[in-house]
Amino acid sequence: MFYPEPIAKLIDAFGHLPGIGPKTAGRLAFHVLRMKEEDVVDFAKALVNVKRNLHYCSVCCNITDVDPCRVCQDKSRDISTICVVQEPKDMVAMERTKEFRGYYHVLHGAISPMEGIGPDEIRIADLLKRLSDERVQELILATNPNIEGEATAMYLSRLVRPFGLKVTRIAHGLPVGGDLEYADEVTLTKALEGRREL
Amino acid sequence: MFYPEPIAKLIDAFGHLPGIGPKTAGRLAFHVLRMKEEDVVDFAKALVNVKRNLHYCSVCCNITDVDPCRVCQDKSRDISTICVVQEPKDMVAMERTKEFRGYYHVLHGAISPMEGIGPDEIRIADLLKRLSDERVQELILATNPNIEGEATAMYLSRLVRPFGLKVTRIAHGLPVGGDLEYADEVTLTKALEGRREL
Repeated sequence: MFYPEPIAKLIDAFGHLPGIGPKTAGRLAFHVLRMKEEDVVDFAKALVNVKRNLHYCSVCCNITDVDPCRVCQDKSRDISTICVVQEPKDMVAMERTKEFRGYYHVLHGAISPMEGIGPDEIRIADLLKRLSDERVQELILATNPNIEGEATAMYLSRLVRPFGLKVTRIAHGLPVGGDLEYADEVTLTKALEGRREL
Repeated sequence: MFYPEPIAKLIDAFGHLPGIGPKTAGRLAFHVLRMKEEDVVDFAKALVNVKRNLHYCSVCCNITDVDPCRVCQDKSRDISTICVVQEPKDMVAMERTKEFRGYYHVLHGAISPMEGIGPDEIRIADLLKRLSDERVQELILATNPNIEGEATAMYLSRLVRPFGLKVTRIAHGLPVGGDLEYADEVTLTKALEGRREL
């Protein structure tokens, strides 16, 4: 005796999402059963639309429903700086600061020999094409502060050396609101190294 | 600057599910973006099918894609016993034991004055109708062992008294594989009360 087929299929679909185990999948499926039909139809449409209406921006490789994406279309931004991030989410995080007014480049990953991801698997070639534009003067490497992100930043900084650009890496240090006592040694060392005069 | 509309909508839809916060919703939406299109379409279909193809069984009130449901259609089961559970999930849990061969009745909830759920909000009237069948001899109350479940069991046991049925409640006690040391006082008291001669 199992669940009727429609609900079993939905539990299975939810269970294939990352971080969702069989119990949560069951809970979600029964929640759907109690949702209003129009909301469920909207949810289903949203799922399909994400696959059908989103593409990569031909300029910055970010996901977008228009091409070029809205950021690349925005002529008011500063063409002299390109900020390189790993994922679309990282770009949104940068935008939330409202501090950066240049353009972005989304790599969609980081170099990770362990997972078999080399420079050709991420959007590095597209980045190099953009650097031939002489107005670009600075490349900010904002990949994640972990091994893969650091390796990617290091690789990129060497790769773009022939372009004669200013290449910078976002700062490592203590997070604002953090606690010195709980900071790990590596972060604290980086914070010390990166100290600035007041 | 926000996400492109299709992904923002999907994040919003995931975020409305129980136990899914904005960060998890974002992670799930980006996972969908990386899924194969056919898998996403299947997922969307599964969602809509659950709403469109599932109904309540006209006999036991369980969710089903055929009416009466497969359990109620099964003539090999024992008509003398009806097991009352709160949710379809509970019925599946009972079926997994492979010990019970009677029929079920799904209440779809429990009496909870705190949440404004009275006897009329759950499928009690449908249960009473079934009890007029003279072949039914025992009613097993398998509502959850918490306040609402106990209250519902108590209410039902009084309500069906005029039918002259045997009314039983599933046993409380220590879970198999559990640890006496960690059992709470109420469970331990119930386990003592329910002790049986060996």
